[in-house]
Amino acid sequence: MKNPEINAARLLDRIQQLGAIGRDAEGRLTRLAASDADMAGRDQLVAWLEAVGLEVAIDRIGNIFGIWRTDTDANPLLIGSHIDTVIDAGIYDGCYGVLAGLEVLAALKEAGVAPARPIAVAAFTNEEGVRYTPDMMGSLVYAGGLSVEDALARVGIDGTVLGDELRRIGYAGARDAPFATPHAYVELHVEQGPVLEHKNLAIGAVETLQGISWQRITVQGVANHAGTTPMALRRDAGYAAAKVAAFVHERAKANTSGSVATVGSIAFEPNAINVIPSRASFTVDLRNPDEARLRQDEAALQAFLDEIAARENVTYTVERLVRFEPVTFDKQIVALIDEAAAARGLSVRRMTSGAGHDAQMVARIAPAAMIFVPSKDGISHNPREYTADAALVDGANVLLDVVTRLVGI
Amino acid sequence: MKNPEINAARLLDRIQQLGAIGRDAEGRLTRLAASDADMAGRDQLVAWLEAVGLEVAIDRIGNIFGIWRTDTDANPLLIGSHIDTVIDAGIYDGCYGVLAGLEVLAALKEAGVAPARPIAVAAFTNEEGVRYTPDMMGSLVYAGGLSVEDALARVGIDGTVLGDELRRIGYAGARDAPFATPHAYVELHVEQGPVLEHKNLAIGAVETLQGISWQRITVQGVANHAGTTPMALRRDAGYAAAKVAAFVHERAKANTSGSVATVGSIAFEPNAINVIPSRASFTVDLRNPDEARLRQDEAALQAFLDEIAARENVTYTVERLVRFEPVTFDKQIVALIDEAAAARGLSVRRMTSGAGHDAQMVARIAPAAMIFVPSKDGISHNPREYTADAALVDGANVLLDVVTRLVGI
Repeated sequence: MKNPEINAARLLDRIQQLGAIGRDAEGRLTRLAASDADMAGRDQLVAWLEAVGLEVAIDRIGNIFGIWRTDTDANPLLIGSHIDTVIDAGIYDGCYGVLAGLEVLAALKEAGVAPARPIAVAAFTNEEGVRYTPDMMGSLVYAGGLSVEDALARVGIDGTVLGDELRRIGYAGARDAPFATPHAYVELHVEQGPVLEHKNLAIGAVETLQGISWQRITVQGVANHAGTTPMALRRDAGYAAAKVAAFVHERAKANTSGSVATVGSIAFEPNAINVIPSRASFTVDLRNPDEARLRQDEAALQAFLDEIAARENVTYTVERLVRFEPVTFDKQIVALIDEAAAARGLSVRRMTSGAGHDAQMVARIAPAAMIFVPSKDGISHNPREYTADAALVDGANVLLDVVTRLVGI
Repeated sequence: MKNPEINAARLLDRIQQLGAIGRDAEGRLTRLAASDADMAGRDQLVAWLEAVGLEVAIDRIGNIFGIWRTDTDANPLLIGSHIDTVIDAGIYDGCYGVLAGLEVLAALKEAGVAPARPIAVAAFTNEEGVRYTPDMMGSLVYAGGLSVEDALARVGIDGTVLGDELRRIGYAGARDAPFATPHAYVELHVEQGPVLEHKNLAIGAVETLQGISWQRITVQGVANHAGTTPMALRRDAGYAAAKVAAFVHERAKANTSGSVATVGSIAFEPNAINVIPSRASFTVDLRNPDEARLRQDEAALQAFLDEIAARENVTYTVERLVRFEPVTFDKQIVALIDEAAAARGLSVRRMTSGAGHDAQMVARIAPAAMIFVPSKDGISHNPREYTADAALVDGANVLLDVVTRLVGI
């Protein structure tokens, strides 16, 4: 046995190779869950898992597990992320965590170590949720938060059914996951935000993950002629929507508790230059690492909606689209990440994840935490998503060290 | 010769008959300019004009004139409006003025009077501007504000060319209008606003018409992750747009000079729940009866855009879509309207038109004014557009009396 070491060139090369799969004629990368492009990415991953000598298992929701069995029946340590992408994606989101996990297992095997428990790398199905809702679906099913039957019946934005598509691409497994309860779960991921770069840090030890509240708000007013209706007699749904959009932004900005708020999509009806909008529908994305504060933000929004509806003589309805409570990750694993980074001389800080991740689902059933590396300009879900090679290797090394500690090597 | 009198039943019946032409399977009324439905409406109007013994002339832009020639070469008195409609329209907008004009000519003929100058009723092409821009096109061409070649080359929302469509429906006249300069122009129209009803008045003597400023503003920010981008680092195009929409509304509402402001249409990019908008495009419709004040409103918008762009670190572009200066109608004709209403015991008030009308174009070349009758709830461009029969008859009688005075009977 020698000291396990990441093969940096192999890891970086595989990130590029996987990132080349699923490009359209204009070079845009899109591997939506259970698409032909996703199949091609999965086939490549499975080939790599098998080449390292891992046992490959596919569960009913299509999650891929590469397992290093040991002769104990101890619960396995699980590491992983996802390899599906958004439309016109970058190459790091998700893929980095899966391929670094694969690299860690390869490094451990090549070093001839004997782990005290099984280790597995997972690629969870449909983390992005672009084609089928909800996002983080594969890990949610794995953690028991959504029935596999319900998930497989979901109809996509293209009218397809997920179960049919998984069968079509050959990734509808016949059995449940090969282990229901991992010993622990660690996920390495690009930050997708600007904090680490902004503070010139190498590693984030993610101790919390923000709660997420997504609502669709529809304001109903009265369409009328833009030229002939005096301002005092208007019931302008568009104006009310603008006031709400400004309110949530300004409240979050004034708040020091880490709230973020976004109105990302909007539509007016009839949406004509010279007609006062009768209807305005828009989404509000609220996040906070603290559940009590997230509820305060939701309550403040509700109160403002009531106020503006009364003042502007409009009505509104609220559709709750997504609601996840904040997640607190496992303190011991977070401490291990901190120590591992420090031991390698890497600057590190405890932080909150602003994005949702598979780790928040697996945290329902096992101790879990995440390792972040910097994202250039905080950009993600975009072809300009970028993390420097050296930073990617730093992250993989920290993952290696944390795994080594967790499996008792 | 007897006293000329409107045939109220005939007028009301024709309004209903014309309103039945151009209905779809669901009963919705749509006669877009130069469409099959418009052709059917035009054919009906021409039949009625001919039945009264009027000479029918079609000019190159498709305006229909029904002319009562006299043996003088005096400039004719012109009355009229339009018979094209918006999508899912009411039956009064435009049609009422044309059919009341026809009824006035019929009443005068039936009374055996001998007018001192020719009288003509006009139905101007494409007042609504839904299928082809600009709106008020036929009267604009007639008044020399747009070349007929330019107008005929306009491409519609359905990809058609207006000149082709006018030929197809048989309304591409070979010659210019049968008279270039009318003696005067009077247009009777439903108010399309709530003022007359609100003040319980029968007749509006329209002395001014608001200036109109339409702009499309596009704000450019930076798309980023809604969960991971701190509020302080955002360049949120959607938030900036919401602030501008709120600003123009609130400024107009606080203003006592008669300003109205509407943000009627909006679009975000990428328009996703969890992505900060990189781009927000929206329209601003500003109107004021006073040119200096309208310029102040435009300048205030510009200043606010500069302020918000600097504060939010976004950029913006402005596209000017429509700009018409306010119109002051002819004082003598407005006084005639006032007197005619009062003589019939009808309550009347001087007022401003909030909407654009063919009269504003004809006012460029001849003394012009408008007569308004109340619109129930101020609703227009909507199947619920409604004016009571008695009010329609009142308006037609005032038109009759004004015409009688203007042609020296």
